[in-house]
Amino acid sequence: MAIVVPFGDTRERDSRPSVDALHQLVADDLARVNETILKHMESPVALIPQLAGHIIAAGGKRLRPMLVLGSARLCGYRGQRHTGLAAAVEFIHTATLLHDDVVDASDLRRGMATANTVWGNKPSVLVGDFLFSRAFQLMVADGSLDVLAILSNAAAVIAEGEVLQLTTANDTETSESSYLDVITAKTATLFAAATRLGAVVGGRPKVEEEALHAFGLNLGIAFQLTDDVMDYASGADTMGKENGDDFREGKVTLPVILAFRRGDDEERAFWRRTIEELEQRDGDLGHAIGLMRRHATLNDALDRARHYTQLAHDALDIFPDNPVKRALLDVVAFCAARTY
Amino acid sequence: MAIVVPFGDTRERDSRPSVDALHQLVADDLARVNETILKHMESPVALIPQLAGHIIAAGGKRLRPMLVLGSARLCGYRGQRHTGLAAAVEFIHTATLLHDDVVDASDLRRGMATANTVWGNKPSVLVGDFLFSRAFQLMVADGSLDVLAILSNAAAVIAEGEVLQLTTANDTETSESSYLDVITAKTATLFAAATRLGAVVGGRPKVEEEALHAFGLNLGIAFQLTDDVMDYASGADTMGKENGDDFREGKVTLPVILAFRRGDDEERAFWRRTIEELEQRDGDLGHAIGLMRRHATLNDALDRARHYTQLAHDALDIFPDNPVKRALLDVVAFCAARTY
Repeated sequence: MAIVVPFGDTRERDSRPSVDALHQLVADDLARVNETILKHMESPVALIPQLAGHIIAAGGKRLRPMLVLGSARLCGYRGQRHTGLAAAVEFIHTATLLHDDVVDASDLRRGMATANTVWGNKPSVLVGDFLFSRAFQLMVADGSLDVLAILSNAAAVIAEGEVLQLTTANDTETSESSYLDVITAKTATLFAAATRLGAVVGGRPKVEEEALHAFGLNLGIAFQLTDDVMDYASGADTMGKENGDDFREGKVTLPVILAFRRGDDEERAFWRRTIEELEQRDGDLGHAIGLMRRHATLNDALDRARHYTQLAHDALDIFPDNPVKRALLDVVAFCAARTY
Repeated sequence: MAIVVPFGDTRERDSRPSVDALHQLVADDLARVNETILKHMESPVALIPQLAGHIIAAGGKRLRPMLVLGSARLCGYRGQRHTGLAAAVEFIHTATLLHDDVVDASDLRRGMATANTVWGNKPSVLVGDFLFSRAFQLMVADGSLDVLAILSNAAAVIAEGEVLQLTTANDTETSESSYLDVITAKTATLFAAATRLGAVVGGRPKVEEEALHAFGLNLGIAFQLTDDVMDYASGADTMGKENGDDFREGKVTLPVILAFRRGDDEERAFWRRTIEELEQRDGDLGHAIGLMRRHATLNDALDRARHYTQLAHDALDIFPDNPVKRALLDVVAFCAARTY
């Protein structure tokens, strides 16, 4: 007879959607991905593995590599190509983070000092370039032009999205559709590439490749929408993200866009002062959250996220039910629910 | 009967080595390269073509694309792949320049305001990423994994060299061999990739591929050595490079390395103050050039450059004499002689 040990909030935690099931299913492959990552960030120039190790070890969840591995598994792939490609995807993601932190002049990422804070902007830019090149070397070693096309197109779209974000930065009149363009380009495109790669290495028909692309794209949009809400609404389970980071940097995310549009003149003046002019005082973050709650913009942003999680969910309908599919659907639920 | 018009120093100029012969031979292809460049730097995000156009139009000589075109021609190639690859090489070069100018905090390039001065560091970083991605898209469109391997390896080595340069920045005790490692990685590697591509698209045997690699590599080293001398010794024909740029940024190039090593205690104190601590006063640049002349470090750096131009020259020996080969050898002579 099994003994139930009722410690803490274990039961509640277990019932919440998470990436754990996917993590367990791909654990062996993920270990190989981590080996590949460590091996390919090596260099006789010691600063490179130091700086790259800082941001890569800081870790996060390895969500994008897990999506490559899970999608490949869903497509019945049994080889080893997917681990190298998962590492390539993580390198592209890491290079983007390094350049992002320089562009945003961020001090913290997941509660840790950013590389640009520790080593300065210069090595962050250059090590980002190095990791980006390494990503392409991994793809070349894989040898598929289809894969190279998917990831080089994704990289171009991501960079384009980053520049677009820059041109809308601190502009409280940014439209919701322009915001959506930015998060689609800078976040969802890499998710879509990651999941699409599963079908490509699995040699699956175009319809499955497109289904997995749609799955990743909508998952990515929902992920970023939720992430942007978390910045104002996160509780304990923040995965290191600091409450109010976006506010302090004057990032115009959906909760701000909606609050600005729904606000009166006085409220708009508040948003212009804090977000456009970055003149922030004690209590401003609390006031901002209060305005968001008054206009229900956090809930509505999560509603928008749910729309995309439903699209992601439905995109997988053509695949038969099995533990991998259920684990991928868990990730969808996790991305929509992780703040609460 | 032809009429000789003896205006100015025309005759003297004509007798000096130049890139003109190569330029004439590949003029049609180069026009197509420029079209490809303009087409692929387009984006609905207007800032991208604006900023990219600024640095790409500022122009320079398109030396690297011309080397791709000339090498392909030397290998008897008659198709059109080389123009797309020449554009890819120029995009990698341009992305590197954009990131370089951010890292060096440079104000001027070829006498024009740098992109980071006009638009700030952020878009320079991100548009650099965009152009780098575009380079890979061009290579993917070309469809050769050999080409992708050559250029992704080159990109990784360039980034590694940039980081290495950063770790030796402002260090007057940098060794000559460490300096050589840096210029080989950050300049010569892309020259070598450019010339090697000629043999690859031409489908030539390995021995010719390696000969063209050696040609480009040694040409690139000579080019950078001469460039670093020019910064202290250039006359009128500077192609826009400002005298003393490297000195003001505290760059430790070979003329400085040799002057520091050959100098007495007082001279070393001068180099430490100006290059390491960047405490520079009126007259310091003149004094630096005086010390370089006293220790013949500019001449000796050019002697080192000549060593590499001889290697580059000899690397082409296996190719039969023809106008393209002579034009490529003209480029070698130009790189060694362009300051005087």
